[in-house]
Amino acid sequence: MTPQLQQNAPEGYAADEYDVVVLGGGPTGENLADRAKAAGLSTVLVESQLVGGECSYWACMPSKALLRPAAALAHARALPGAKQAVSGPLDAAAVLARRDEFTSHWHDDGQVEWLRATGIDLVRGHGRLAGERAVLVDGERLLTARHAVAVCTGTRAALPHLPGLAEAHPWTSRDATSSAVVPRRLAIVGGGVVAVEMAAAWRALGSEVTLLVRGPGLLPRMEPFAGELVAAGLAEAGVDVRLATAVTGLHRDGGPVTLDLDGGGRLEADEVLYATGRAPHTDDIGLETVGLTPGSWLEVDESCAVTGVAGGWLYAAGDVNHRALLTHQGKYQARIAGAAIGARARGEKPDTARWGAHAASADTAGPPQVVFTEPEATAVGLTLREAEQAGLRVRAVDHDLGRVAGASLYGDGYRGRARLVVDLDREVLVGATFVGPAVAELLHSATVAVVGEVPISRLWHAVPSYPTISEVWLRLLETYRG
Amino acid sequence: MTPQLQQNAPEGYAADEYDVVVLGGGPTGENLADRAKAAGLSTVLVESQLVGGECSYWACMPSKALLRPAAALAHARALPGAKQAVSGPLDAAAVLARRDEFTSHWHDDGQVEWLRATGIDLVRGHGRLAGERAVLVDGERLLTARHAVAVCTGTRAALPHLPGLAEAHPWTSRDATSSAVVPRRLAIVGGGVVAVEMAAAWRALGSEVTLLVRGPGLLPRMEPFAGELVAAGLAEAGVDVRLATAVTGLHRDGGPVTLDLDGGGRLEADEVLYATGRAPHTDDIGLETVGLTPGSWLEVDESCAVTGVAGGWLYAAGDVNHRALLTHQGKYQARIAGAAIGARARGEKPDTARWGAHAASADTAGPPQVVFTEPEATAVGLTLREAEQAGLRVRAVDHDLGRVAGASLYGDGYRGRARLVVDLDREVLVGATFVGPAVAELLHSATVAVVGEVPISRLWHAVPSYPTISEVWLRLLETYRG
Repeated sequence: MTPQLQQNAPEGYAADEYDVVVLGGGPTGENLADRAKAAGLSTVLVESQLVGGECSYWACMPSKALLRPAAALAHARALPGAKQAVSGPLDAAAVLARRDEFTSHWHDDGQVEWLRATGIDLVRGHGRLAGERAVLVDGERLLTARHAVAVCTGTRAALPHLPGLAEAHPWTSRDATSSAVVPRRLAIVGGGVVAVEMAAAWRALGSEVTLLVRGPGLLPRMEPFAGELVAAGLAEAGVDVRLATAVTGLHRDGGPVTLDLDGGGRLEADEVLYATGRAPHTDDIGLETVGLTPGSWLEVDESCAVTGVAGGWLYAAGDVNHRALLTHQGKYQARIAGAAIGARARGEKPDTARWGAHAASADTAGPPQVVFTEPEATAVGLTLREAEQAGLRVRAVDHDLGRVAGASLYGDGYRGRARLVVDLDREVLVGATFVGPAVAELLHSATVAVVGEVPISRLWHAVPSYPTISEVWLRLLETYRG
Repeated sequence: MTPQLQQNAPEGYAADEYDVVVLGGGPTGENLADRAKAAGLSTVLVESQLVGGECSYWACMPSKALLRPAAALAHARALPGAKQAVSGPLDAAAVLARRDEFTSHWHDDGQVEWLRATGIDLVRGHGRLAGERAVLVDGERLLTARHAVAVCTGTRAALPHLPGLAEAHPWTSRDATSSAVVPRRLAIVGGGVVAVEMAAAWRALGSEVTLLVRGPGLLPRMEPFAGELVAAGLAEAGVDVRLATAVTGLHRDGGPVTLDLDGGGRLEADEVLYATGRAPHTDDIGLETVGLTPGSWLEVDESCAVTGVAGGWLYAAGDVNHRALLTHQGKYQARIAGAAIGARARGEKPDTARWGAHAASADTAGPPQVVFTEPEATAVGLTLREAEQAGLRVRAVDHDLGRVAGASLYGDGYRGRARLVVDLDREVLVGATFVGPAVAELLHSATVAVVGEVPISRLWHAVPSYPTISEVWLRLLETYRG
């Protein structure tokens, strides 16, 4: 790139000009940059921390690395013949060491090398929007964008305002996924994905875990039976699950932390993890220079162009747009937005019709999600309640997964449940939920069916192999057809 | 049923008249009877052995019960943290005991009770066709059918003509799945599903296993890499895999069996399993009374009506029609045929168009199959070669499964491969193959895509959850789209 002064650049700065400037180098930013580059556009990525983002270092990768060995051991223990070969507990040090491998010991050399090989420039530093099509890094280096600036800065843990919380030095998802030490007693506040996954992980690693959930159940965005089965699994693993329990204050003075509970009780723990929500990383990225409100979620259209900004040059993909706070949906939006930027740069009209090449329609159809607890909880599309609230005429059909031959072969005492939500007017699936051990890979069958809008009459011909857990599809369709 | 004499019944017999007579009570016969019953037709099932058939007692159920504990232990051993907890070998006696539970100790009380509860009559004995719409059981009891007779007699192991084979008392699939004893040395002749699954199972249980394969590779009906990866997995587990090796003769005189190999060598073993193919159970079912050839496979149309018999009253479903020798496809054909019988009984014209309610189209599209070895080999639809031979303009896209994050998290040293076969004219998938540990549940995603004929442009929106093994879908589609 030849540096050149831009019309719209703040005065006094020599600007590096690119076709696309991507703010934030997590998986979403990386994928968006990759798609922009693939569209023939010069692209620069700005990242103030590690290239690879939360997912690589403080979320998906380390959390799954923490969870997987415990799941494998639990599955072996559920099988006569195999369980006799299992004698010891999980080796926590070995699990933590493997987790460290999966995070590359919190170094991003591999990802930086990928950027280099892909031809994407990297600027390390804190980027802020500086008016239209401009990003200022660390207050001194100006990057301008011929076509688009994409904000992919993600989220951070949102902590409530509570007496004593700051002094309690609570863990957030970052600490919970990267801790080198197994706390003897871990209190977890929250009932969503981070809370239940970390409860499962640290319990398996040896912590006494108490899960404090304000609401009436776990995983409130899934079908109710998902949270119920996961709660039962956690309780069976030895987690103290306390529903309808709020924390009113915390105390720490060098030693353990004490939590005041709203019922009047107290709980002492060595660490407390707050997993009560996420806030967008937008408070200090110069939103005010383009007329937006710092700290707000960025509202976007189906192509991930920010709706509040004229000229169609500003995009926001990934968690920061609040459409679907999931790594794979961020990457999906990145592919869609990258293609849309490419199309607009070529002067083409993007195809933003439902399921078009430049519409992130899967977000609104209901993104797939896998919760890697024991049992696993997986879902795609709409829950029964969501579908009804959307005004659809629907019917839910359920089946006990433990009654499927493939599931009972998988392990003794297999417990799980499956649900399809059928749109009765179109005779297609609009949602599916599978909860049970080893259902993570089963979910994509439902994702293809929901997104592909495959009619029930055709799904009847999609024969599940015997004896797999996927045979539940046959049972569900038989139930539906009566 | 009120017994009454039929016009077409052999003289001298009082006949029990039903709407539908089903010959053979394996999963196919059971399902066909169930569907006929559900269509409001009176139905009787004739079975000479155990209700539930090969699948329940000598195939799917016991084989998977034998294989699953070994797989679970192998998966735990691939994970630092879990492997330290695994000390001993598989407990073979416990595995065999669990297998015995899954076969209900070779008693069919449960299945008989299901028939009773469903309202399907059971006649135990050897059934033979006795002219049009008539079945004679044990030469003495005549059953006549107002609407249809369905032959669901399945297959048995086909043994070659070889010197000394009979005297060697070879195992067939029945012995291999039901043996109460772990042979010290087991020779297996064959390279198909039964051969490789039983090699994996008995090796894990402690046998020294030699696999003698006449052809150049294993699993010849799948993509070549499936057989290669399974061969590597077997070899790693300690199976002596010998390709391009034929057996020319056998010797046994009370003690071990000796196999003469075509290269001139000899192999001694305690048992030899012949898994070299299947023959239809049609040699003694009275085919000659309806103008068909005893011992032949029964050719059928898409609704599973036998083509060589006039009047449309004779059906053949499951292995015996040679369309797809898989339990789940037999059950599928049973659903299709049962519905077709019901429609014709109501005087309706069946819908036998491709993917119609009365056409077993999934058979010809390419049925799904899972081979439960380590790695698992799974496929649906056409292989690249089959698609090319069918005259389709296709492209295969491959991806190394070990490079998918979800796979490397699943276990260290994960090895596997995935292939999609894309019909370039219609831009839909016509085939998919996944080979690797724990891909069994992943297959159904491809089955839905192939059967649903979901366009590639739509599959692009079917986002796999991160980090699952199913993310290979994204990699494959990225490779295809370039």
